[in-house]
Amino acid sequence: MKLTKLLPLIAILAAGAGQAQVQNRIEIPDINGYKTLQCDFHIHTVFSDGLVWPTVRVDEAYREGLDAIAITDHLEYRPHSKDIVASYNRSFEIAESAAKKEGIILIRGSEVTRSMPPGHLNAIFLSDCDALVKDDWRAALAEAKRQNAFIFWNHPGWDAQQPDTTLWWKEHTEIYDNGWMNGIEVVNEHSYYDDVFQWALDKKLTLMGNSDIHEPIQTDINFAIGEHRATTLVFAKERTAEAIREALDNRRTAVFHKEFLIGEEQYLRPIFENSFEIIDMAKGNNQVTVTFLNKSGLTFYLKKTAHDKNVVYFRDFEIKPHCKYSISIRFKGDNDGKVNFEVTNLLVKPGKGLECSYSLK
Amino acid sequence: MKLTKLLPLIAILAAGAGQAQVQNRIEIPDINGYKTLQCDFHIHTVFSDGLVWPTVRVDEAYREGLDAIAITDHLEYRPHSKDIVASYNRSFEIAESAAKKEGIILIRGSEVTRSMPPGHLNAIFLSDCDALVKDDWRAALAEAKRQNAFIFWNHPGWDAQQPDTTLWWKEHTEIYDNGWMNGIEVVNEHSYYDDVFQWALDKKLTLMGNSDIHEPIQTDINFAIGEHRATTLVFAKERTAEAIREALDNRRTAVFHKEFLIGEEQYLRPIFENSFEIIDMAKGNNQVTVTFLNKSGLTFYLKKTAHDKNVVYFRDFEIKPHCKYSISIRFKGDNDGKVNFEVTNLLVKPGKGLECSYSLK
Amino acid sequence: MKLTKLLPLIAILAAGAGQAQVQNRIEIPDINGYKTLQCDFHIHTVFSDGLVWPTVRVDEAYREGLDAIAITDHLEYRPHSKDIVASYNRSFEIAESAAKKEGIILIRGSEVTRSMPPGHLNAIFLSDCDALVKDDWRAALAEAKRQNAFIFWNHPGWDAQQPDTTLWWKEHTEIYDNGWMNGIEVVNEHSYYDDVFQWALDKKLTLMGNSDIHEPIQTDINFAIGEHRATTLVFAKERTAEAIREALDNRRTAVFHKEFLIGEEQYLRPIFENSFEIIDMAKGNNQVTVTFLNKSGLTFYLKKTAHDKNVVYFRDFEIKPHCKYSISIRFKGDNDGKVNFEVTNLLVKPGKGLECSYSLK
Amino acid sequence: MKLTKLLPLIAILAAGAGQAQVQNRIEIPDINGYKTLQCDFHIHTVFSDGLVWPTVRVDEAYREGLDAIAITDHLEYRPHSKDIVASYNRSFEIAESAAKKEGIILIRGSEVTRSMPPGHLNAIFLSDCDALVKDDWRAALAEAKRQNAFIFWNHPGWDAQQPDTTLWWKEHTEIYDNGWMNGIEVVNEHSYYDDVFQWALDKKLTLMGNSDIHEPIQTDINFAIGEHRATTLVFAKERTAEAIREALDNRRTAVFHKEFLIGEEQYLRPIFENSFEIIDMAKGNNQVTVTFLNKSGLTFYLKKTAHDKNVVYFRDFEIKPHCKYSISIRFKGDNDGKVNFEVTNLLVKPGKGLECSYSLK
Repeated sequence: MKLTKLLPLIAILAAGAGQAQVQNRIEIPDINGYKTLQCDFHIHTVFSDGLVWPTVRVDEAYREGLDAIAITDHLEYRPHSKDIVASYNRSFEIAESAAKKEGIILIRGSEVTRSMPPGHLNAIFLSDCDALVKDDWRAALAEAKRQNAFIFWNHPGWDAQQPDTTLWWKEHTEIYDNGWMNGIEVVNEHSYYDDVFQWALDKKLTLMGNSDIHEPIQTDINFAIGEHRATTLVFAKERTAEAIREALDNRRTAVFHKEFLIGEEQYLRPIFENSFEIIDMAKGNNQVTVTFLNKSGLTFYLKKTAHDKNVVYFRDFEIKPHCKYSISIRFKGDNDGKVNFEVTNLLVKPGKGLECSYSLK
Repeated sequence: MKLTKLLPLIAILAAGAGQAQVQNRIEIPDINGYKTLQCDFHIHTVFSDGLVWPTVRVDEAYREGLDAIAITDHLEYRPHSKDIVASYNRSFEIAESAAKKEGIILIRGSEVTRSMPPGHLNAIFLSDCDALVKDDWRAALAEAKRQNAFIFWNHPGWDAQQPDTTLWWKEHTEIYDNGWMNGIEVVNEHSYYDDVFQWALDKKLTLMGNSDIHEPIQTDINFAIGEHRATTLVFAKERTAEAIREALDNRRTAVFHKEFLIGEEQYLRPIFENSFEIIDMAKGNNQVTVTFLNKSGLTFYLKKTAHDKNVVYFRDFEIKPHCKYSISIRFKGDNDGKVNFEVTNLLVKPGKGLECSYSLK
Repeated sequence: MKLTKLLPLIAILAAGAGQAQVQNRIEIPDINGYKTLQCDFHIHTVFSDGLVWPTVRVDEAYREGLDAIAITDHLEYRPHSKDIVASYNRSFEIAESAAKKEGIILIRGSEVTRSMPPGHLNAIFLSDCDALVKDDWRAALAEAKRQNAFIFWNHPGWDAQQPDTTLWWKEHTEIYDNGWMNGIEVVNEHSYYDDVFQWALDKKLTLMGNSDIHEPIQTDINFAIGEHRATTLVFAKERTAEAIREALDNRRTAVFHKEFLIGEEQYLRPIFENSFEIIDMAKGNNQVTVTFLNKSGLTFYLKKTAHDKNVVYFRDFEIKPHCKYSISIRFKGDNDGKVNFEVTNLLVKPGKGLECSYSLK
Repeated sequence: MKLTKLLPLIAILAAGAGQAQVQNRIEIPDINGYKTLQCDFHIHTVFSDGLVWPTVRVDEAYREGLDAIAITDHLEYRPHSKDIVASYNRSFEIAESAAKKEGIILIRGSEVTRSMPPGHLNAIFLSDCDALVKDDWRAALAEAKRQNAFIFWNHPGWDAQQPDTTLWWKEHTEIYDNGWMNGIEVVNEHSYYDDVFQWALDKKLTLMGNSDIHEPIQTDINFAIGEHRATTLVFAKERTAEAIREALDNRRTAVFHKEFLIGEEQYLRPIFENSFEIIDMAKGNNQVTVTFLNKSGLTFYLKKTAHDKNVVYFRDFEIKPHCKYSISIRFKGDNDGKVNFEVTNLLVKPGKGLECSYSLK
C-alpha cells in the first residue's frame, strides 16, 4: 500500500476533539527562597519493561502537576525487544515534544540494570543513552560520568535482589569513591528504607524518592482516595532543568512518600511552618484558642512531647490537607509555657520526626 | 443534680481538638461587575422535620463554599414537637454564632406549609418567625410582607401535592397580585420544572433553586462523585445579606442544578465566556488549533448548530471542569466562517440552550 | 553483551510481589436462560495507535469484570511503526497468556481503517490478521469473510469522518449486500448515534457498543465516580468464545453506555425485571407501600405515563444501583388500577424508553 | 391552629418517594462457628450533644452494613436541653421502629458522664435510662447493674480528661471489683490506646471499639476513600441482641479500627485464614507460585520474620481488600522450609502482630 494514500487518513485521525487534561497538583510550599519542585526521576515505558508509550508519562506528570520527570528505561533488560527495535534514546525523543507542550521538564536518563552487586543505578542528565551499553558495569558508569550524569543507586532494599537485609557491598564503596554515586533512593515505589536514609545522611548522598512506575500510573496509585506517587522534592532556584541539576548536586531535596516527608531538618521545618496560615488567636482566661488553616496538600501528625505540665493540650493531633482547625490550649496559671510536639511524619532522621516548640504567650 | 457541678465537665467536653473543615467551593466566575454568590434559601433542621441540629447546616455550607443560607423550618409541620419545644426563631438563633464564625451569611426564614393550593412558600429576610403562625395562610403571608420578607413559591411541581401536572391555581394569582410572591423555585432538591421556568420568565419572578435539605447533606448529595446541591446563584454588588436582598429584588439570579445552569441569557453568557482562558491559538494551513482551559468548576456541553459548511469542527463537545483542551477547526478554503454551537446545559429558556457563534479568522 | 548473562537477572525481575488486581464488575442480571456477558470488541494497543502494551488490556478487562475483549489494532494506521515492527497478529499473541490466566475470553481482530466511505470496520474472530493487509478495502473485507469473521461498521457518526451528519453511503449497501457487515456500532467510546440505532433495527444488524480505547482506560473512564466503558452485552448460552459468536450471529446483544441500555425490548424488559427483589408489599387503607431492592449495578429512570387518575404515584423516580427503596402508591377508591411508567434510560427504539405497567391489586 | 387540619398535610409529606439506601458492608469472615457481627456501642444524638435525629443513626448503620448499634446519649450532659425536653429513653424509642424496619439490632444505653475519675462509662442493655440519673456516680452504676446492664469504660485515654497519660485510678479498681466494669474501650473514635489493650488482656475485660459519633457520620468518616468507623466485632452464636450480650459477657470480641484488628489470637488467626481463597499453587523447579484471593474487606500487612535462609520470599507484603495476588517463593535447594511472617496490623498484644508460619512443601 502506498504511503501517500494514507496521509489524508492520518490527518483525519489526528483531528478529533482534544483530550481532557485536569491538573491536580499537591500543594507543597516553597521554602528558603527556593521553589519546591515535584520530580520523579525513575520511570519506565514500553521501550524497556514498562507498559505504556512514552507520551503517556508526560500526560501523567501533567495531570499530577509534576515539574520534572526522567524516563529511565533499562539498558540491559528489554523484554519487548522482539517487537520494539530502537535506540536507547527513543523513549526520551518520543516524549520530548509532548513534554514541551505540557510544560514538563523532561530529563534524559537510563537505568543501569545489573545483578547485585551493584544492582540498579539510574544515570540522569545524559546526552546519549546508547553509549552506556557496555558489558562491564564499571564501563557503563564511567561513560555516564563522562557525560556528566547525575547517578543514584536505585531501591537498595529491593527484596528481589536483597531478600533479607539491605547491604552496602564493597562494590558500592568503589562506586562511591569513584564519584559514580551522587544520590540514593530512600524511597522506591511503595517502599521506604530507613537504613538507606541513614547512609544518605552519613555519606552526604542526595536523597531521592521515585515511583519506578511500569504500569499506567492509575493502576498503581489510586488518586481517588488521595494516594500520590513517590516524588523527589527539589528545592531549586528556578523551574528549569539546570536549576534542578544544581539543586541535586547540592543535596537540596526531600522525599515525599505516602504521608511522609523524609529529609533534613533545614528543609522540613520551613515546609511545616510555611504550610499554615493563622486565622485567629483568641486569648481568654487561662486559655488560648488558635484557628489556623493548613494551606498545603500535606497531612501532619503531631504528637505531644515532654512539656511544662501547666500547659494542657492535645496528646495527638492530625492535621489534614487544606483543612481549618480551632484548637484550645489551656494554662493552669499564667498563659505561659511552651507547646511541644513532634511532627511524626516529617522524618529528619530514621524513626525521628521533626521536633517543634511554640510559645503562645 | 446541681448545675454548678457540671460546669467544669462542660468545659472539658468542649476542649477537644478542633473539627477538621475543608472547603470545596465550585468555582463559578463573577460577571458583569457583580460577585457570583452561591446560596441555598431552603433548608430544614430538627426544629421542623429536618434531621440535623442547626449548626450542622452552617458547617455544610462552609465545606461546600456557599456564601449564604436561609434556614426555613416549616411553621405548620413540626413532627418533633413532642420533644422539641421552641420558638420558630430558634433554629436561626442557634446557627447564628456558627455562621458568624465560619463567615456564612445566615438569613432568617420560615416555610409556610399548606395543602395545595397554595402549597408551600418560603419567606426569607424575616425579623420574627413566630409572628407568622396563623390559621389563615393569607394572614401568614401578609405578616411576612409586613416584615418586608422576600417570598417565593416552593417546588410548584412536587408530586406529593401535584401528582400529575404542575398547576398555577387562582390562589397563586391572588398571591402574586398582592405582591406576596417575589420568586419561584424552578429547581427544588433533585427536580427541575421547565413549565415553572417559563412562568418565571413571563411573570418576572426571581428564579430560585434550592436544596430543601432534610437529611445530613452527604446522605442526599454524593460529593465524592462530583454531585452538588441545587443552589441559587445571586449576582450581588458585594458579599452581604443586604446585597443579596437587592439582587433578589432585581431578579439577578440563576439556578445551578446538576450540570445545568438555568437563567437569563444576560447572566449565562458571561458565565460561559468568563469560564475560559485561551492558552494558545495556532493558525495553520486551513486549520486553527485552539488550546484553552476551563477555569471554572462547571461542565459545558456544546452541540454544533447550523453553520457554514466550509468550517469543519466537532458535532458534540464536552468540556469538563478545570480541564485543558486543544481543538482543531478546519476550513475548506480560507480560515473564515463562524463556529456555531449551542451550550445545551445552559438553559436560557425551557429546552433551549445558550446559542454561541465565534469567528476564528 | 551475552544473553545468557542476563537470564538470572530476568528471573529476579519477574520474582517480585504479585500485582494487586481487584475485580469490580457491574452486576447485570442474566435473562431468558442466557448468561449476560459484558464484552468490548474494539480496543487498541501500542501495536497501532494505542498507548499501552497488549497485556494491559487484559488487566483492565479483569478489573472491570469483563467477560471478553477483542484487540483490534488498525491495519492501515500504525504511527509507531518506526519503532515497533511486528505482525498484525502480535498484539493478540502477546495478550493471549495473560487472558488465559485471568480468565478473559480474548478474540483476535483487526480494524480495517479507511477514509469514508467506507470508513472503519472491525473484523473479529479472525484466524490471521496479516492476510487482511490489502490495498483494496473490498479485498480486505472479502478476506475477513473468507476467514469467517464477524464484521461490524465502527462509529458511523464519528465527526472526524462525518462532520455534520451520519450517512449510509452506497458503499455500505454494497458491503451489507455482500454479507460483510454483520453488526454496527450504535455506541463508540462516549458517543451514541440514534440514527444508527434505527438502521440496526431496520436492517437486522447486531447492535454493538465498544470503548475504542487508546489511552490507559483510567485516563478516559473515571471509575471513582461510577463511570464505565461502553460495552456490548451478549446474551450467550455459556461463557465461551463460541457461544459469544453464536449470540452475535443471532443478534442477541444490547449496548451498555453511560446510564443507558440500548436494545430490543425482548432483552431490556427482562433485564429491568430481573434487577429487582421485592422485599415487602404493605397493603393499607387506599395505599400500597412497596419496598424493593435494585440488585443490579444499573440505574433506572422512571417517568409516569398516561394512567388511571385514581392511582396516585411519583411523576419521576430514579432508582440507583444496589439501593433499597420504599414507595407508596395511593388509590382514590379501591386499591386498583395500574402504575404506568416509561424507563427512559432503557432505549428500545431511538428516543423511546421501555414502557411498563404493573398492577398492585 | 387545629391539629386535625394538619393531618392530611402530614400524610402528604410522608408520601414522597422513598429514600435511597445502599448497603456497603465491609466483609469480615465468620469464625469458629460464630457469626462475626459488626457493632457500634457508643453513639450520640441531639438528645445529648450529638447533632442528628436518632433515626439518622439507624440509617447510617444500615448503609454501613452494621448489625447492631447502641445509642448512648449522655445522662449528665445535655447542652440542647433548653429546646429538647425529654426522657433519657427517647432517643432509643424514636429510633426503634426505624431499626426494626432496617433490620438493625438496637440496644438501649446511656453514657454516665463524669469528671475523671471515673470519667465516662457506657451502660448498655438497660431497661430504663431515666433511673440512672443520680447525683452520685456510684448510685448510677449500681442502678445500671441492677438493670443487668453491660458496662464499659469509655475512652480511658481521652486527652480532655487525661491530657498526658492514661491512668487507672483507684476508683476504677472499686468499679472493677464491684462488677461494674465488664468491658473497656481500646479504641474510641479515631484513637487507639495500647496501654488500655494490655489492661483489658490482664483484667479479662471485654475489648470494645466504638465510634462515639456526634456529627453526621459522613462528616467524620470519609467513606469515599475507604475509611470506616471504629467497630466492635462480636463473635455471636446468632444475629440477635441476646446472642450479642452472651458474646460480650464471654469476651468474644475484637476491635476493627482503621486498618487494624485488635484482639486475642484465637479470634484474629481464623479471621486472617478465613479471608483467603487459594486459587492456584504452581510448583516448579525450586519455586512455588501461589495465586490467592483476599475475599475480605480487610487489608493485611505481612512482614518477614526469622526464617530458614533457603526460602526466598518478600520482605514486606501488603494485601488489599478483595484483591487477587500471585506470589513466588523460591527455594535454594528443595522446595522445603517455612514461610514466616507477622501480620503487623492484626494486633494480638500491644505492639505485637499475629505470627504466621506456613509450609509450602
